[in-house]
Amino acid sequence: MDGQLVGEKIAQAKAILEELDIDLWLLAGRETAELTDPSFPLVVGTSVTWTGLFLISRMGEHLAIVGTGDVDNVRSTGAWPEVTGYVQGFREPFLAALDRLGPRQIALNFSTDNASADGLTHGVFLLLREALEGTAHAECFISAEPIVARVRGRKSPAEVELIREAVRQTDAIFDRLGAILRSGMTEREISDFMHAQIREAGLEATAWDYEYCPTVTAGPESPWGHVGPTAIGIAPGQLLHIDFGVKYRGYCADLQRTFYLLRPGETAAPAACQEMFGIVDSCIQEAAAALRPGMQGREIDAVAREIFGEHGLGWDFAFGHQLGRSCHDGGATLGPAWERYGRRPFDPIEVGQVYTMEIGAKVPGYGVVSLEEDLVVTEAGCEFLSQPQRELRLVRLES
Amino acid sequence: MDGQLVGEKIAQAKAILEELDIDLWLLAGRETAELTDPSFPLVVGTSVTWTGLFLISRMGEHLAIVGTGDVDNVRSTGAWPEVTGYVQGFREPFLAALDRLGPRQIALNFSTDNASADGLTHGVFLLLREALEGTAHAECFISAEPIVARVRGRKSPAEVELIREAVRQTDAIFDRLGAILRSGMTEREISDFMHAQIREAGLEATAWDYEYCPTVTAGPESPWGHVGPTAIGIAPGQLLHIDFGVKYRGYCADLQRTFYLLRPGETAAPAACQEMFGIVDSCIQEAAAALRPGMQGREIDAVAREIFGEHGLGWDFAFGHQLGRSCHDGGATLGPAWERYGRRPFDPIEVGQVYTMEIGAKVPGYGVVSLEEDLVVTEAGCEFLSQPQRELRLVRLES
Repeated sequence: MDGQLVGEKIAQAKAILEELDIDLWLLAGRETAELTDPSFPLVVGTSVTWTGLFLISRMGEHLAIVGTGDVDNVRSTGAWPEVTGYVQGFREPFLAALDRLGPRQIALNFSTDNASADGLTHGVFLLLREALEGTAHAECFISAEPIVARVRGRKSPAEVELIREAVRQTDAIFDRLGAILRSGMTEREISDFMHAQIREAGLEATAWDYEYCPTVTAGPESPWGHVGPTAIGIAPGQLLHIDFGVKYRGYCADLQRTFYLLRPGETAAPAACQEMFGIVDSCIQEAAAALRPGMQGREIDAVAREIFGEHGLGWDFAFGHQLGRSCHDGGATLGPAWERYGRRPFDPIEVGQVYTMEIGAKVPGYGVVSLEEDLVVTEAGCEFLSQPQRELRLVRLES
Repeated sequence: MDGQLVGEKIAQAKAILEELDIDLWLLAGRETAELTDPSFPLVVGTSVTWTGLFLISRMGEHLAIVGTGDVDNVRSTGAWPEVTGYVQGFREPFLAALDRLGPRQIALNFSTDNASADGLTHGVFLLLREALEGTAHAECFISAEPIVARVRGRKSPAEVELIREAVRQTDAIFDRLGAILRSGMTEREISDFMHAQIREAGLEATAWDYEYCPTVTAGPESPWGHVGPTAIGIAPGQLLHIDFGVKYRGYCADLQRTFYLLRPGETAAPAACQEMFGIVDSCIQEAAAALRPGMQGREIDAVAREIFGEHGLGWDFAFGHQLGRSCHDGGATLGPAWERYGRRPFDPIEVGQVYTMEIGAKVPGYGVVSLEEDLVVTEAGCEFLSQPQRELRLVRLES
């Protein structure tokens, strides 16, 4: 992310601190190229090797305290006007900064519920606690979860445009794939083709783990879930399901598309596949129509889950998650009130958030029907960033 | 990493648990493709989306407890024979496993000193503590740092060969660079050339942050440190210093090389540059000659630092760090007893560890002389994995 975008997000963070009545947001990490707090790309804008502290204060100041070897690097972002370098340890400049700022709370990136807001390691937490032991600041730590959720969640128009472009590029790769499918092509070959398209388009990366993006589910025997593509080949009379997204200038798309592979002479998908598609499609369309800012995510999840349930179908996952720099962008989720989602299904849906909506099921003997669309929350409801798939994509395989 | 290598590292981990008299090593994470505990690639072998628990027991068992959507994926590694899926939360199967195993200690990946052993986020730590509250297991948490340091540090012969190949490929790119340098070429262009070579060689990645690998320091005015390449161009009569490494099948190289760019008519580098090179070279050669397993890293750091100091020079960093799947592989370090290195300079040097040795200084008016070599610890001392640079590389620039 360039320094200007980072600067905008830092300014947004200060306004959010004001809104939440929190004095200081402290980001801390080391070797952050290897283990990256998800907030670092948003508001730090670079990585550090030694333990680096980034203080964003509602009072208007923001400053960095980093190892001397990281100083030039942090300065060169242009987003950190005040950078203090240390040689032996960060404690002294850290205490001096806290004494000057006098924050009532020090918000840290830990959260039991939101992985995106949980970028602080336990060891660095202990280091910070140790540094403040015996000082007036020792009891000030709170979770930065509400800050992170808002800073990540509320996309600026520029951020929405980047996601829209990631979606467009992802859809274009799906289109190109549809044109080259042939009988016997394996899930692995399909994945290789899509990876080659990413390189060809000059894109930087897949939206998630390269090995599992795309996930490809060919026919009824393929394992379905977060699993890498296998040696299973596609064949006429089967469903082909793909979950895929590219990253464009740091921002992700996350789409699922379902193809039906026509048998010779066939001109439509079997009724069982069409019926399942209709159910999945109506879950997404009804949920999108119901969505309004201010609602809780679990209410939207319930719209889809109820339609699914009426057909005797179940869904083991949240119906939707936020999307941004990460494919699972954390914070409010369109999920059920289950233990594993913590408080996130109860968090409010806000204007500027970008969500996925996803649901699907197996059609015995054919494979998986599952869709995923991306949308942005607006004052009036929501707007799809993807062109929703409204019918099965029929493909006649070359042999 | 393939399942077989992961299986070998899990077996090694069990032997290390026995050696340390620790009953259980618990790795825990979620969304681990985004925030990856550095131990996951070594002994888990895949990523998980929902909170996943990986239990490695000295009693011989190892088992995974993961969200249902991650089950197939974890199974497909081949390294985890027992995988339990959960839908709503991990607490029940987790308690059942602990009751069955009855560990006296539960070692978690947190560490104040070793970033590689500090992959557990504070939020997941709180989740684990909450899950065990009120049970007999609640007081069993200890730091897994000594386990992680040994599992990461002690490279198998197969791992050493992967690093040796990464070093060889890195050196080859330095050679190709030497042949194409021309006057006015910017640091950015040099970086672009090296990145293109990585793609051409079919290598997967740089050893660290793409933007800062290579770091290129051209001449006396360029900022030196962990900073991206700038628009500064190279010119005759200057030093060109580059810190660079590639990743080969998951394993890193980390080398620094120093070029002198000859002026028209010049056939050798100026005396000031040669003298500095000799000092840097002798730091590395003397330190390597002194190294024996069983010594503490700070003793080796002291060998180099003393030579440097005799010439009135200082060095703000550790003299060397471990190398492996990460460029800073954590654990024992060839560093001074400074606060920021914690206890790591006191940890023993062990056979099978791979270290870098690096030191350098500015030569006013010319630029930076700095070198970095990679070596593996042997019974007798150490063996260089790189071909050490023993004199300035002289380059006559095309204009």
